[in-house]
Amino acid sequence: MRILFLGDVMGRTGRDAVVAALPGLRRDLKIDVAIVNAENASHGFGLAPDMADAIFAAGADAITLGNHSWDRKEIIPYIARQKRLIRPLNYPPGTPGEGAVDITLANGRRILIVQVMGRLFMDPMDCPFRATETILARARLGVTHAAILVDFHGEATSEKMAFAHAFDGAVSAVLGTHTHCPTADHQVLPGGTAYMSDVGMCGDYDSVIGMGKAPAIARFTRKMPGERLHPADGDATICGAVIETGPDGRAQRIEPLRTGGRLSQQIPSA
Amino acid sequence: MRILFLGDVMGRTGRDAVVAALPGLRRDLKIDVAIVNAENASHGFGLAPDMADAIFAAGADAITLGNHSWDRKEIIPYIARQKRLIRPLNYPPGTPGEGAVDITLANGRRILIVQVMGRLFMDPMDCPFRATETILARARLGVTHAAILVDFHGEATSEKMAFAHAFDGAVSAVLGTHTHCPTADHQVLPGGTAYMSDVGMCGDYDSVIGMGKAPAIARFTRKMPGERLHPADGDATICGAVIETGPDGRAQRIEPLRTGGRLSQQIPSA
Amino acid sequence: MRILFLGDVMGRTGRDAVVAALPGLRRDLKIDVAIVNAENASHGFGLAPDMADAIFAAGADAITLGNHSWDRKEIIPYIARQKRLIRPLNYPPGTPGEGAVDITLANGRRILIVQVMGRLFMDPMDCPFRATETILARARLGVTHAAILVDFHGEATSEKMAFAHAFDGAVSAVLGTHTHCPTADHQVLPGGTAYMSDVGMCGDYDSVIGMGKAPAIARFTRKMPGERLHPADGDATICGAVIETGPDGRAQRIEPLRTGGRLSQQIPSA
Amino acid sequence: MRILFLGDVMGRTGRDAVVAALPGLRRDLKIDVAIVNAENASHGFGLAPDMADAIFAAGADAITLGNHSWDRKEIIPYIARQKRLIRPLNYPPGTPGEGAVDITLANGRRILIVQVMGRLFMDPMDCPFRATETILARARLGVTHAAILVDFHGEATSEKMAFAHAFDGAVSAVLGTHTHCPTADHQVLPGGTAYMSDVGMCGDYDSVIGMGKAPAIARFTRKMPGERLHPADGDATICGAVIETGPDGRAQRIEPLRTGGRLSQQIPSA
Ligand SMILES: [Fe+2]
Ligand SMILES: [Fe+2]
Ligand SMILES: [Fe+2]
Ligand SMILES: [Fe+2]
Ligand SMILES: [Fe+2]
Ligand SMILES: [Fe+2]
Ligand SMILES: [Fe+2]
Ligand SMILES: [Fe+2]
Repeated sequence: MRILFLGDVMGRTGRDAVVAALPGLRRDLKIDVAIVNAENASHGFGLAPDMADAIFAAGADAITLGNHSWDRKEIIPYIARQKRLIRPLNYPPGTPGEGAVDITLANGRRILIVQVMGRLFMDPMDCPFRATETILARARLGVTHAAILVDFHGEATSEKMAFAHAFDGAVSAVLGTHTHCPTADHQVLPGGTAYMSDVGMCGDYDSVIGMGKAPAIARFTRKMPGERLHPADGDATICGAVIETGPDGRAQRIEPLRTGGRLSQQIPSA
Repeated sequence: MRILFLGDVMGRTGRDAVVAALPGLRRDLKIDVAIVNAENASHGFGLAPDMADAIFAAGADAITLGNHSWDRKEIIPYIARQKRLIRPLNYPPGTPGEGAVDITLANGRRILIVQVMGRLFMDPMDCPFRATETILARARLGVTHAAILVDFHGEATSEKMAFAHAFDGAVSAVLGTHTHCPTADHQVLPGGTAYMSDVGMCGDYDSVIGMGKAPAIARFTRKMPGERLHPADGDATICGAVIETGPDGRAQRIEPLRTGGRLSQQIPSA
Repeated sequence: MRILFLGDVMGRTGRDAVVAALPGLRRDLKIDVAIVNAENASHGFGLAPDMADAIFAAGADAITLGNHSWDRKEIIPYIARQKRLIRPLNYPPGTPGEGAVDITLANGRRILIVQVMGRLFMDPMDCPFRATETILARARLGVTHAAILVDFHGEATSEKMAFAHAFDGAVSAVLGTHTHCPTADHQVLPGGTAYMSDVGMCGDYDSVIGMGKAPAIARFTRKMPGERLHPADGDATICGAVIETGPDGRAQRIEPLRTGGRLSQQIPSA
Repeated sequence: MRILFLGDVMGRTGRDAVVAALPGLRRDLKIDVAIVNAENASHGFGLAPDMADAIFAAGADAITLGNHSWDRKEIIPYIARQKRLIRPLNYPPGTPGEGAVDITLANGRRILIVQVMGRLFMDPMDCPFRATETILARARLGVTHAAILVDFHGEATSEKMAFAHAFDGAVSAVLGTHTHCPTADHQVLPGGTAYMSDVGMCGDYDSVIGMGKAPAIARFTRKMPGERLHPADGDATICGAVIETGPDGRAQRIEPLRTGGRLSQQIPSA
């Protein structure tokens, strides 16, 4: 199975690029299932229902969120009915939506998609390791599910790598999001889990993690409230990864994807 | 001019790989000046004088440090006499060593090498932006110096990108270190500064940022003092970047380097 | 019922003062049950078994710990057999010891003592609110237990106050520890829970939270590893609080205790 | 000289209480100079010019701010002309206002009032120790100034105590603000500097650091944006301290003040 995962969609330029490119990427890269992190789609802060609809319509099988899940409040009733919109699993009980969702493909194969949030340099959520263990108690890779994919939304590379090794062999892939910066450490770990510390954002890379430069710089140099942050609006680079899994659900390959915009271009083999 | 920069050297496997490879890399990649971040060379924590000597002997023109600068106390008298060992500039006044050092090449060209440390999710140092401005008040790219290179040792991608844009055009390159994870966002910014959020570590990538897996995982799942962390000792991937600058000191190109070990291999063009 | 609670015992001076004073305090203040936080008893870092024995022998019915619980490793086998030594409840499952302990007084009355740790500016533990709710599902104040006392070990006053109000009326008292600084905001909240943001440490207040001054100052002004921290060894002020509960288990009164050393003296009425 | 210092004025109830009480406190407590921290006067966030005017009119000689200095933007032109409104000294250069201000009393005596902000668990400002040293290079206690008072606006008790000891004897008093919780560790340090980790807020103590309870609790138990925080509006306790200095500018006494509202009442001797 071939899985496409795209990182944090940032503002209008990111949304437009992803919606325009997704059908072609699915076709050209022979994608079976496509997942998009869209926590920053709405002006950098959250996701509005119509934007989610547009990303689903363009070919996403699932959308993941992150620490910006609830920045647009309209997403709360939407997530109650749209089960393929996934928020971090390790929010407290009672949080709207779900953090682990089964997707059934046209050919009947089941895929489990999980998002967890890191805690190092972030808000103190429930333990992402234990939350994932609970889910995996009922999901066996290659047995109950053809693939299991985890979006680890976090800041610290140490926590991301520790998590991936902790579940190496139990899931098809651990793909990082949140730093808005694609890494080049993609690899299949010894146990068969594909890993990449961050798949990067879908947005304009002539920016500060997708935001316009001057106000973002001022946040570090001045200690006063400044101009509001707005997403940069230059051409987006679509950043993500393609994972190919085998019959046992383990990853055989992970290749980064970077297309459009300023970054070096990288197209996975089909 | 062609500049080679290698990221955080991690433990014995990283040291051995860098010392063995550096002469060949200099020759094959036609390097004019080579800089190595070695804050983790000594069992992951700090740098011992003999290790610094070995890295210099292998062909480094300068070595940079980071938040682990002083983990090995023997480095304090050493840095007092070895001016090509550079610690973050924005330590408080009175800190041993220097954070901005001039190197003169055999052909007489002068290069300024600066290291600053980030503050987001890190220790509250002096402002890295203001510290750099002070240095640049006496250093004009293409006039006083043929190249100016900054090692930005930091955690947060936002702070690294903000810093790079703030000095875009005033320095040849801003190269990130500290996360131990190579990024794929290398680019020459609009003003002519080469940028890469992190050049990655020189160490074993079957690890948690270079450390052995089990004790590093336990730090996230248990909240008790555990087994000591030790560097993983599998084959190292040497990670870094090559920057090519023009007569005005600005960057014309930046290419990542990843050689050896588990990561995808990437050799800059010569 | 009259409950005495003493805050973080700091080093030898704190230990000696508490062991010497506890019998007299119990008698003079007509104390029914005495609890001592001793996470810093051993040179400021953790608690050794013989020190715990000495504090119990002097009249403590229970001892609580904190983020320094495991600094002295010998406490791990000790806590397995000494049930009246209590560590924070919201450590991960599998952590040695217990975080909520029933004490039965000579007159047969049962008291529940709970310790939780805050998460703001601290390590990401499990949620202290939910952990406490779970315990209180089986403990009804004035019904199953004559008194329920919570040691909230935390940094932020906001989290401490939020916790106290969340459980106002369900527990006899929420008493803060960890900042090593006694507060003057003791009050009985509207629902009948006694509250004090921090009861203060038992240690020398000519110090930096109980540690010798010069090395502690240097930690803020220099960014290099410095001299080791050692507890200050001047006369200790014993800091704590006395809570008086009524037949329904709610608090009728809370009075601070400060005796010895440099701080203003405050002896609760008997 | 007798100095009155009142802590963080919180919302309407705090403002009303302080404005009503200040004339009487000045008179009854024989106050020579009165300083009020008002960073939370405007609905908990910042200070509006008319509120500052009212506090000055009621008898404040100076007003200090904190991390909420700029929450109300109208204060920026106001602070440019009102020199007795003081913001933290260790903001970056170019920040509006001043962090160290000379006040001359009717009898001709000069007083220096300084505010600095802590960095532990707070924003990375410039070093508060070095900023204060720079100011004290031109201010000698008992020589150039009859009194020197520092408002240390910070979270961590360790940083506050370290700061106070670092300047013990060089200033008349170091008084903490920001935690909104009065401490009972007031003392004159060995060198003659009066110290109190936090003087507490002027606001309703049936609250979470002055804010209404339910939304403040929800911030810790739910990880979703919730109801806005609003200051609690019950009767305020006015919290502060009175420092008495001698001819050499050093403190002879420090006494806490707590009057009104729910906290235990404490009136300094006159
Ligand atoms: Fe995020
Ligand atoms: Fe994001
Ligand atoms: Fe580092
Ligand atoms: Fe490092
Ligand atoms: Fe503690
Ligand atoms: Fe403690
Ligand atoms: Fe504040
Ligand atoms: Fe405040």
